[in-house]
Amino acid sequence: MRIIKGGVTQPEGFKANGLACGIKKSRKPDLALIVSDVPAVGAGIFTKNSIKAAPLVVSQKHIHNNKIQAIIANSGNANCFTGSFGLKYAEQMAQLVSNLTDIPEQDIIVASTGIISKPLEYSNIKKASSKLVKGLSIQGAGKAAKAILTTDLCTKEVTVQVTLGGKKVTMGACSKGSGMIAPNMATMLCFITTDAAIDSKMLKLALKKANDLSFNCITVDGCMSTNDMVVVMANGLARNKKIMKSGKDFNIFCEALKYVCLDMAKKIVRDGEGATKFIEINVVDAKDDAQAKKVALKIANCNLVKTAAYGSNPNWGRVAAAIGALGIKQITEKNLNIKFSSFEEKNISITADLNLGKGTATVYTSDLSNEYIRINAEYN
Amino acid sequence: MRIIKGGVTQPEGFKANGLACGIKKSRKPDLALIVSDVPAVGAGIFTKNSIKAAPLVVSQKHIHNNKIQAIIANSGNANCFTGSFGLKYAEQMAQLVSNLTDIPEQDIIVASTGIISKPLEYSNIKKASSKLVKGLSIQGAGKAAKAILTTDLCTKEVTVQVTLGGKKVTMGACSKGSGMIAPNMATMLCFITTDAAIDSKMLKLALKKANDLSFNCITVDGCMSTNDMVVVMANGLARNKKIMKSGKDFNIFCEALKYVCLDMAKKIVRDGEGATKFIEINVVDAKDDAQAKKVALKIANCNLVKTAAYGSNPNWGRVAAAIGALGIKQITEKNLNIKFSSFEEKNISITADLNLGKGTATVYTSDLSNEYIRINAEYN
Repeated sequence: MRIIKGGVTQPEGFKANGLACGIKKSRKPDLALIVSDVPAVGAGIFTKNSIKAAPLVVSQKHIHNNKIQAIIANSGNANCFTGSFGLKYAEQMAQLVSNLTDIPEQDIIVASTGIISKPLEYSNIKKASSKLVKGLSIQGAGKAAKAILTTDLCTKEVTVQVTLGGKKVTMGACSKGSGMIAPNMATMLCFITTDAAIDSKMLKLALKKANDLSFNCITVDGCMSTNDMVVVMANGLARNKKIMKSGKDFNIFCEALKYVCLDMAKKIVRDGEGATKFIEINVVDAKDDAQAKKVALKIANCNLVKTAAYGSNPNWGRVAAAIGALGIKQITEKNLNIKFSSFEEKNISITADLNLGKGTATVYTSDLSNEYIRINAEYN
Repeated sequence: MRIIKGGVTQPEGFKANGLACGIKKSRKPDLALIVSDVPAVGAGIFTKNSIKAAPLVVSQKHIHNNKIQAIIANSGNANCFTGSFGLKYAEQMAQLVSNLTDIPEQDIIVASTGIISKPLEYSNIKKASSKLVKGLSIQGAGKAAKAILTTDLCTKEVTVQVTLGGKKVTMGACSKGSGMIAPNMATMLCFITTDAAIDSKMLKLALKKANDLSFNCITVDGCMSTNDMVVVMANGLARNKKIMKSGKDFNIFCEALKYVCLDMAKKIVRDGEGATKFIEINVVDAKDDAQAKKVALKIANCNLVKTAAYGSNPNWGRVAAAIGALGIKQITEKNLNIKFSSFEEKNISITADLNLGKGTATVYTSDLSNEYIRINAEYN
């Protein structure tokens, strides 16, 4: 696997664009479009929050046919808790792109991130849509990556290349993380493109596996968003022998997708609201992997562990108490071992050995700082 | 029910004392003793954390006989994660009191609160024990209340009086909450005394009921302690007809105990680490009471809700997203109603109406402030 520069337009046959349509008062870019030249198979994973933003309702409907040829996303407004108008606007965002590109409406994903419960500035999106489509280009990946940001401090892109049956296959992605200018909600969006030829069922399976080891292993403040979305589109233009089942090619594809997702997930944590530290939590010798992950997430979401990291004050009592709070009877003072790297560094690791079996998990999180409080208390 | 001044020595036949034995470097009081003149029935509830401090291991063993005649408690050191020596010291704390008072060792509760994983300064406790016992008095309730504090900003005491079958029955309590000078852990201790005559089974039942509606309804930072403990001792000196079963007297007793526990719980929240706001969360029209409590606790433990309270920025999107994160499918945008009191006040209320049934719950919490971060990041 080779890691190269660039983002969602590095794979064959993808174009992107991003511009400012006026949703953000700062006049920063807030509207992005990513398009495949040809129909592509698609897969997506959406928030499990029972309060779902309108664009997720529309996108989950559109993805039923396992095809994605375009993604339109706005930042600055989450279009969530916006009633029937919000739903109509989310549908119309797809229609706009469909009318201007001839891509079927059902093959278009809609995403939003920003303030909750504010009516979507749909007229701005409509007005800018023609310019957005006309400006699509191979050079536009960075523009799209920028236009989906909220309080993120930097754009997040990655590209990898692998060889599948002698053919060069490329996979690119951009994402945004937790933080908004007027943050009502941390929202995670990730858009992945690839020119691999792959069956839609295998793509779904690969995304699920990659997601479980990446986006499902990160937490900034333990607060689940209403707008989270990871989607991948695979247009087949690399002309590799189509991946139809498990085997060597599928494994290579999965490795590439896992790398891309994990890279994006880690970049989101590093740019988490108020983050001053990047914390890797390893749980080893758990009963099984599921128990290991449960324990790792409990440590990662403990405010006392996160403030200890912020203050560079290693404190294994807090880690032990967080683990104990799960009430798993087998985990006792006698069999629990906790190790730290130096808390003075920007990158910290915490390892908990449960001495119960062979289960392992790694979870990534950031610290809890005064800046987190400032961002989330003083956003008005 | 009458609310009067004072604490654990207001009921007939109780004495208390508190002094500084040198565990705390600040030389503030750190050793407390509460004693009943006569044998008393007892009940206790202990942390569900699977990592339990040594004094809890000892106290849970001692309470098997349903009798408590004395409570010895130190602050400044949690005696947790302290191995076999910690356990020995906790046992010896009970032995010390037993030797000086002739109260059987098994009728003595031991409690500790403070720093985790630091060897207990047992020699200080031993040296001070004789003075501690000699100084026991009816005037000593305030001293005991003070000697169990850590970073609490104020002592927490309450006393109520009720009439049971023509007899005046008194119930007093003191407690400490979340926060330590060098906080490794928020620890909650509550000691309740009463001169009521009550069967030990009924006392247990009454404590469980009161606890479910008070201490199990508060959260400061969602971090469960290794040392939490609520104990009640009832010595029967009020000479009411002994409460042996459900009925009018038992109901009056339960109401008094619930009032005492709720008063202590609320005082703990008000004095929570860095707290600038007292937040009451009401969930109504849930499927049942259990669902209501689950939803209320999810709101109470959401950092984004707590920072919004700190910043006086009402934000129902954050409340909705916190509720939605539970993934309860019946709770949707359509049936969820959220109401706030003014966020400018020191006392805030948040009400969530789920429109699903008749379940209700009330939970109390504090906000998440810069002071919380400071206390927990900069404790070294």
